[in-house]
Amino acid sequence: MYRTHTCGELRINNAGENVTLAGWVQRIRKMGGMSFIDLRDRYGITQLVIDDGASHELNEVAEKLGREYVIQAKGLVAERSSKNSKISTGDIEIKIEAIKVLNSSQTPPFTIEDDTDGGEELRAKYRYIDLRRNPLKKALEIRHKLGQEVRKYLDNIGFMEIETPVLIKSTPEGARDFVVPSRMNLGEFYALPQSPQTFKQLLMVAGYDRYFQIVRCFRDEDLRADRQPEFTQIDCEMSFVEREDVLNTFEGLIKALFVNVLGHEIKEQFPRMSYAHAMKYYGSDKPDIRFGMKICELKSTPSNGINFSGHSEDQVVDLVGGQNFVVFDSAEYVAGICVEGAASYTRKQIDQLTEWVKRPQIGAKGLVYIRVEEQKIKSSVDKFYPAGHLEKIATEMEAKPGDLILILAGDKRKTQEALGTLRIEMGNRLGLRKNDNFAPLWVYDFPLLEWDSETQRFYAMHHPFTAPKPEDMEKFYSNNRDHIAQVAANAYDFVLNGTEIGGGSIRIHDATIQKRMFEVLGFSDQEAESKFGFIINAFKFGAPPHGGIAFGFDRFCALFGGQETIRDYIAFPKNNAGRDVMLDAPSPIDDSQMEELFLKSTLKK
Amino acid sequence: MYRTHTCGELRINNAGENVTLAGWVQRIRKMGGMSFIDLRDRYGITQLVIDDGASHELNEVAEKLGREYVIQAKGLVAERSSKNSKISTGDIEIKIEAIKVLNSSQTPPFTIEDDTDGGEELRAKYRYIDLRRNPLKKALEIRHKLGQEVRKYLDNIGFMEIETPVLIKSTPEGARDFVVPSRMNLGEFYALPQSPQTFKQLLMVAGYDRYFQIVRCFRDEDLRADRQPEFTQIDCEMSFVEREDVLNTFEGLIKALFVNVLGHEIKEQFPRMSYAHAMKYYGSDKPDIRFGMKICELKSTPSNGINFSGHSEDQVVDLVGGQNFVVFDSAEYVAGICVEGAASYTRKQIDQLTEWVKRPQIGAKGLVYIRVEEQKIKSSVDKFYPAGHLEKIATEMEAKPGDLILILAGDKRKTQEALGTLRIEMGNRLGLRKNDNFAPLWVYDFPLLEWDSETQRFYAMHHPFTAPKPEDMEKFYSNNRDHIAQVAANAYDFVLNGTEIGGGSIRIHDATIQKRMFEVLGFSDQEAESKFGFIINAFKFGAPPHGGIAFGFDRFCALFGGQETIRDYIAFPKNNAGRDVMLDAPSPIDDSQMEELFLKSTLKK
Repeated sequence: MYRTHTCGELRINNAGENVTLAGWVQRIRKMGGMSFIDLRDRYGITQLVIDDGASHELNEVAEKLGREYVIQAKGLVAERSSKNSKISTGDIEIKIEAIKVLNSSQTPPFTIEDDTDGGEELRAKYRYIDLRRNPLKKALEIRHKLGQEVRKYLDNIGFMEIETPVLIKSTPEGARDFVVPSRMNLGEFYALPQSPQTFKQLLMVAGYDRYFQIVRCFRDEDLRADRQPEFTQIDCEMSFVEREDVLNTFEGLIKALFVNVLGHEIKEQFPRMSYAHAMKYYGSDKPDIRFGMKICELKSTPSNGINFSGHSEDQVVDLVGGQNFVVFDSAEYVAGICVEGAASYTRKQIDQLTEWVKRPQIGAKGLVYIRVEEQKIKSSVDKFYPAGHLEKIATEMEAKPGDLILILAGDKRKTQEALGTLRIEMGNRLGLRKNDNFAPLWVYDFPLLEWDSETQRFYAMHHPFTAPKPEDMEKFYSNNRDHIAQVAANAYDFVLNGTEIGGGSIRIHDATIQKRMFEVLGFSDQEAESKFGFIINAFKFGAPPHGGIAFGFDRFCALFGGQETIRDYIAFPKNNAGRDVMLDAPSPIDDSQMEELFLKSTLKK
Repeated sequence: MYRTHTCGELRINNAGENVTLAGWVQRIRKMGGMSFIDLRDRYGITQLVIDDGASHELNEVAEKLGREYVIQAKGLVAERSSKNSKISTGDIEIKIEAIKVLNSSQTPPFTIEDDTDGGEELRAKYRYIDLRRNPLKKALEIRHKLGQEVRKYLDNIGFMEIETPVLIKSTPEGARDFVVPSRMNLGEFYALPQSPQTFKQLLMVAGYDRYFQIVRCFRDEDLRADRQPEFTQIDCEMSFVEREDVLNTFEGLIKALFVNVLGHEIKEQFPRMSYAHAMKYYGSDKPDIRFGMKICELKSTPSNGINFSGHSEDQVVDLVGGQNFVVFDSAEYVAGICVEGAASYTRKQIDQLTEWVKRPQIGAKGLVYIRVEEQKIKSSVDKFYPAGHLEKIATEMEAKPGDLILILAGDKRKTQEALGTLRIEMGNRLGLRKNDNFAPLWVYDFPLLEWDSETQRFYAMHHPFTAPKPEDMEKFYSNNRDHIAQVAANAYDFVLNGTEIGGGSIRIHDATIQKRMFEVLGFSDQEAESKFGFIINAFKFGAPPHGGIAFGFDRFCALFGGQETIRDYIAFPKNNAGRDVMLDAPSPIDDSQMEELFLKSTLKK
């Protein structure tokens, strides 16, 4: 027994007890003949005091202590004269009788404080030291808590956690697989799963009814910022369900997580929104609905042709035509957002915003503004539009004096997305996106297919097992490509604060629909068989109606922790080059390992 | 909503309710004009009845049903006239009003019954059908339950579940790693972890105090029967602990699992036994203590030299010398077991046993028996030993009339192990190894090192971070190789019914002891640095005293389920060649995938 209590445990009612603590030396202060040591462990910090009357021996040990030394300290719990209300043990201190050094420490390469002086690279290399800091400890605590609560909730409602294999088979479509050469089956490779999709569907075929797993997945992608080659998913599937059953089940889970992990009760049903509505009003399939600032169409016509639109949201509108402003007249689409209270933006600030939307990531051609003031309206296009016209636009956009209207024009889809990005930027600037304000949302009725003009074929937006919406069946069987393009998938995403953290669908379980799907994707029977034969075969033996969802657990944790970056929520993450800087992995392997696998590198040395 | 209830839910008090069920057709029987359908889902079986007065339409649908069709059935819950007490819904049946076929099924390749007619290979290929059978469903249910209970228990006592990476760095020592070529870091490889050993120790350095994880591990070994290339571990580590703290903590976990999963309360402390004692009395480091039949030494001398023995268990004994029986006289070691009530074994049976122990797997030279009967003693060596001498041996072995003594002779360690195997075999034959009888056991004080006469060096039995026992420190620092060989490790195994399902140790946290360890293993400072530099470095920044344990979760589940084979406890296992027969993995990959990785096979095609 190295300790009787942890460093976060002792309170005023322990005063008078003899205790033994163990932990790390956070800091040492001397005041007169007395020494104060803050002793830290996972549970907290306790103040140790060495009196000016302490033995020579004790003083000698204390003299040698440095930051991050690991010590065992025995002493008497005493009430503090000056209490520290910032820490849970702040009412007491330990009058030390003996200290034993359990381990010394070199001076750590950066300070172990909430705001450390260490750079990212250095902290990654010494991850085991960085993990001692409070923000990272709290991140891993919230991750642990979320994992346990997810399991408790799903277990309670009859879900079984079933582990699926990590060494599987490489599939020809989709993102790139990591592969693993097999020594026992030379010349052959396993692949690491991008998700357990086929396995969970097989488990439904096997009758498991309600499955979940918190599971590692792998994707060999060129990493964008804040992506990891290995990531964790909360993976779920249910049988004998329709969309509403799935949404209600997981809305229940998410509400329970909010209450049990954050103490945050959400009573109302989560808002639900179609993909078409989200694109029209938020310029995004994952709207942040913590704030309004909806997109207002000033010129638009119903989409047609091969692009999915969700017709019900399409309207003919033209509030900007006939004034000989060629930018708007020649544009397919003109729309804007009304930024509340931003009329005070200077010309310089607006110029900067214009440059910002013209960057290639956003790709707008320019930015038109209308500044709505108490008495007048000022706009970059007021030489084309009389004040009355601009006023009409302002009214249409529900602008009040003091607001700033920002307008983009161009191709419909691209401009919607640009406005969506601009809206988020303005939300940030106006402080409308607070991390402790949570706005959950379901988005559904995504397009089923995506037309690729290069290969002149449809691709499945999700995967070829996603079911079309029942009401779109007629279009699905149509011979008209443009009609097929309008078929909505019975798919849904869970969006939190503008981030998609879950997605799923009802799957096809009917062989006829599946056959049609392959036909639409342009596969011959042989192709379908060679690409998906394995699961098609399983579906011949009594597949039940089923559907499911998967949540990105890393991002889920980060959002619950009030952060947007996932790296702090993973104990040992990789950097943007897919490297573990601490381990120095990946790394070359021995020639003998290569030989055993009968592999040779074709790289020039 | 496809159903109002599951097939395991309805009881007599539901009689009169209109319900909708969905599931698989288990079987159909016709009696007179009536049809009976057993409808199955994960939760149970419910009997559906189609009355002789049913509509033409309903009869027509029912006519087409086959085994494993997926249907939705609406009807009225009614009390059965002849109840079935074997199933939970056996008091009721559903008077069917309508049936909808949700999916048809081809005739499954084997019957979906507890005892199926499908062979192993066929069932592996159609795993998703095999998983519908009760024994496999129960296996996965017990696995799910165990996983949840492990987490609940450990969470309750302050353990944090922390996920460690799967894409790590290949380590030069130990078993063979699976490797993963990196596309973003060409020419370099990740390795899949054989265990999270280094990560959990780093988490202790990082101050996480109590860590666990239910985690996938990988080992590219030539597979023995019932081994899997990927397997799951309950991996745990604690800081500021000594051996007793670890054993007591996990004894608490295991007892809770017995109660919560099997309803089996174990009040007493688990027996604890030294490795030396286990070898001496059970001929095994994982004794099955559900039965006695201990090994009794008839001739032995204390071990010496380079082999670890645990001196305290060594005794000088010779009960068989001086009778000119050259087999015993020339043997280093003679010992036997007394098989209760087996005196009735015929000469033929004993001959068969003799052949059995002479097989290369056991490798005994022969088998001596002493049959103890009411009035006489009969032995294969009675021409060397007078009856009085044999009687003395029988008394020493506490044999009663009716017992059979079986004796082996030869090298000490090899003969102990052979007797251990024989003991298990006789335990099986006598029905002393019942699956629902549980005998947990801690074994400790394993040897720290193993001498390899070929390379003339010591190897670590566990890994180089396992601590020597504090009381063996003097030997550990000795210059005498034979003394060093006698150092016990502060390591322990958890054994259940003769199977090792957990193992761990207290780790070295003191730099001086670690340095000595590397010295003993014959590493230069540079070698130690190049092989283990990464963790040695971490240990310079305040490593706390720590230790841990890891349990083989697959085997844990199998033993709790009363089985010895793990394959049924894994949803999608691999066969002995490391293949997933259902997926047909591993498999060749596209040339383009090889090219992207700059890899070439050196296999001749």
